[in-house]
Amino acid sequence: MEYRRVKDQDNYDDASQKDIESVHGKPLSGVATSNLPSSGGVLAKKSSWRLKSVVTLALTLLTSSQAILIVWSKRAGKYEYSVTTANFSVEALKCAFSLAALLRIWKSQGVTDDNRLSTSFDEVSVYPIPAVLYLVKNLLQYYIFAYVDAPAYQILKNFNIISTGILYRIILKKKLSEIQWAAFILLCAGCTTAQLTSSSDRVLQTPFQGWVMAIVMALLSGFAGVYTEAIMKKRPSRNINVQNFWLYIFGVLFNLIAICVQDYDDVVNKGFFHGYSFITVLMILNHALSGIAVSMVMKYADNIVKVYSTSVAMLLTAVVSVFLFRFHLSLAFFLGSTVVSVSIYLHSIGKPQPQK
Amino acid sequence: MEYRRVKDQDNYDDASQKDIESVHGKPLSGVATSNLPSSGGVLAKKSSWRLKSVVTLALTLLTSSQAILIVWSKRAGKYEYSVTTANFSVEALKCAFSLAALLRIWKSQGVTDDNRLSTSFDEVSVYPIPAVLYLVKNLLQYYIFAYVDAPAYQILKNFNIISTGILYRIILKKKLSEIQWAAFILLCAGCTTAQLTSSSDRVLQTPFQGWVMAIVMALLSGFAGVYTEAIMKKRPSRNINVQNFWLYIFGVLFNLIAICVQDYDDVVNKGFFHGYSFITVLMILNHALSGIAVSMVMKYADNIVKVYSTSVAMLLTAVVSVFLFRFHLSLAFFLGSTVVSVSIYLHSIGKPQPQK
Repeated sequence: MEYRRVKDQDNYDDASQKDIESVHGKPLSGVATSNLPSSGGVLAKKSSWRLKSVVTLALTLLTSSQAILIVWSKRAGKYEYSVTTANFSVEALKCAFSLAALLRIWKSQGVTDDNRLSTSFDEVSVYPIPAVLYLVKNLLQYYIFAYVDAPAYQILKNFNIISTGILYRIILKKKLSEIQWAAFILLCAGCTTAQLTSSSDRVLQTPFQGWVMAIVMALLSGFAGVYTEAIMKKRPSRNINVQNFWLYIFGVLFNLIAICVQDYDDVVNKGFFHGYSFITVLMILNHALSGIAVSMVMKYADNIVKVYSTSVAMLLTAVVSVFLFRFHLSLAFFLGSTVVSVSIYLHSIGKPQPQK
Repeated sequence: MEYRRVKDQDNYDDASQKDIESVHGKPLSGVATSNLPSSGGVLAKKSSWRLKSVVTLALTLLTSSQAILIVWSKRAGKYEYSVTTANFSVEALKCAFSLAALLRIWKSQGVTDDNRLSTSFDEVSVYPIPAVLYLVKNLLQYYIFAYVDAPAYQILKNFNIISTGILYRIILKKKLSEIQWAAFILLCAGCTTAQLTSSSDRVLQTPFQGWVMAIVMALLSGFAGVYTEAIMKKRPSRNINVQNFWLYIFGVLFNLIAICVQDYDDVVNKGFFHGYSFITVLMILNHALSGIAVSMVMKYADNIVKVYSTSVAMLLTAVVSVFLFRFHLSLAFFLGSTVVSVSIYLHSIGKPQPQK
């Protein structure tokens, strides 16, 4: 599996190195001050690589099973439950998971400055911003369908890949090598190729407003991702579960408002969990775990790894669907997968030289 | 135009360096023996780069106009002329061009060992081999259509790219860097993507025999190309027009046999040039010039440059057809072109380090 190679791309990244030290609760002092590769440094690198691998693999598998669950639920019939309560449940579950993890850490390590839940206004004030950005993007989503049909929208969504790369470069000031940029363009072209259907060409008839909205949406989504990474990495020693709790609590809040505005009557009359099936519960669990995996990729890896991971997940979904739903893979899918595989390979061999 | 970058890929190649020195009739002695980059070496490199650029550009333009002439002639109606006489005329014209160029060289430089037409059996014995290989490939072409339809064949022809790369590596023992191999896979995927149509997926239903024949044909065509390069470069100082003459004279011979076997009655009854139109003459002229351009690319550049050149020509043809024949470009075409462009970029930046 080619995406394994992606994961060691940032081993030279000192910032993420520090994260690992703190998250394991055993700061390897001496590593940070020594320039020579000590055995502690090698160990830390290895453990960083392993952590990155695990979270990336988890995100890939969760994302691809997400898509499969959606297909499965669509085959089972229409959504009977209210989408807003499901979204609320996802955010609440993520909060609960974060708190549970924190309780375990407090028990074993005691409460420290890095893992205490209480926070300053300065620290917490940036946390609602990604949620707001995604909200605006989701609102735009309703309007873009006035100009763009569904297959064309599927194609235009791949702008996300490019916008994430550009904002990652500009906002986080991280460098990609020339080869990695080339790989990123290939990733975008490859994903789009793999998704080509007989109706994809309609995207070429997209009116100007459609292009603008697609680009704005890609920028919003890319900005939200990059902003989340900035938040998670701003204070590397800060426990990820505390960061997650504050990130998700705003999700809980926003979705509570959405329930009140959209589905208040339904919830009052039919109950909060009306229409939930086994598959609904699975989907909520999957979304919650995927959300946590995204946070972990943001803290221990980066947005680039996230984009590669979700791209591979898209391909994986299609392959699994052949067996589960007797999907037929097109020639375009094979060509796109080839291009994505080469892109992953190029990204891994094209890492910029560490500046000493 | 991205393919410009391709041309300087092999500047480090000493063999082609020597070709340039001799073809200009001014051997730059001292360059070959000196390891330091003298101003003579720089000049020779510059002149080598320029020659490569010109022949590659010529091949690209000739190949793309070739395809346009074919579309034009198809639009004008069915072929009224006999194809074998046209092929014969192409080979004869190439011989004539080579002889004319030789006459000019003999006048200005006198007859030397390198530009004399007389040859040994050892030298000339290898010249019919590429012609024979192409003959076998063309015969196979009739049989493959029993297993593969035309759109699928169009797709399978892109195996040529991969087979050329592999045989170039094995037979000519020239190295491509890891990035250049990745670029070559991308070139194949990109060209195929650009040619995708709604009926391309039929290629996936190709029976086993079809795949085998397509692979054999790709190997034959790749082998013929690589063999021609080996012939042209075996004696770098040998004048290219002499080499071309011996290469083409076997083409004249083989096509004469083909006329006797296939079109003898037609030629005797209606005349050799029956059914020739202005466009037929243009196509013959174009084929002759393209053939000479291929020879020059083989001598002064290599098979890899040839493959890139013809790939770019394919894209160029499609773009020009938009204006000439109101063709519509598909999304797949744009994606494929993007992948091909990135491939060319990667090929140019990925050249292996010269071994000193």
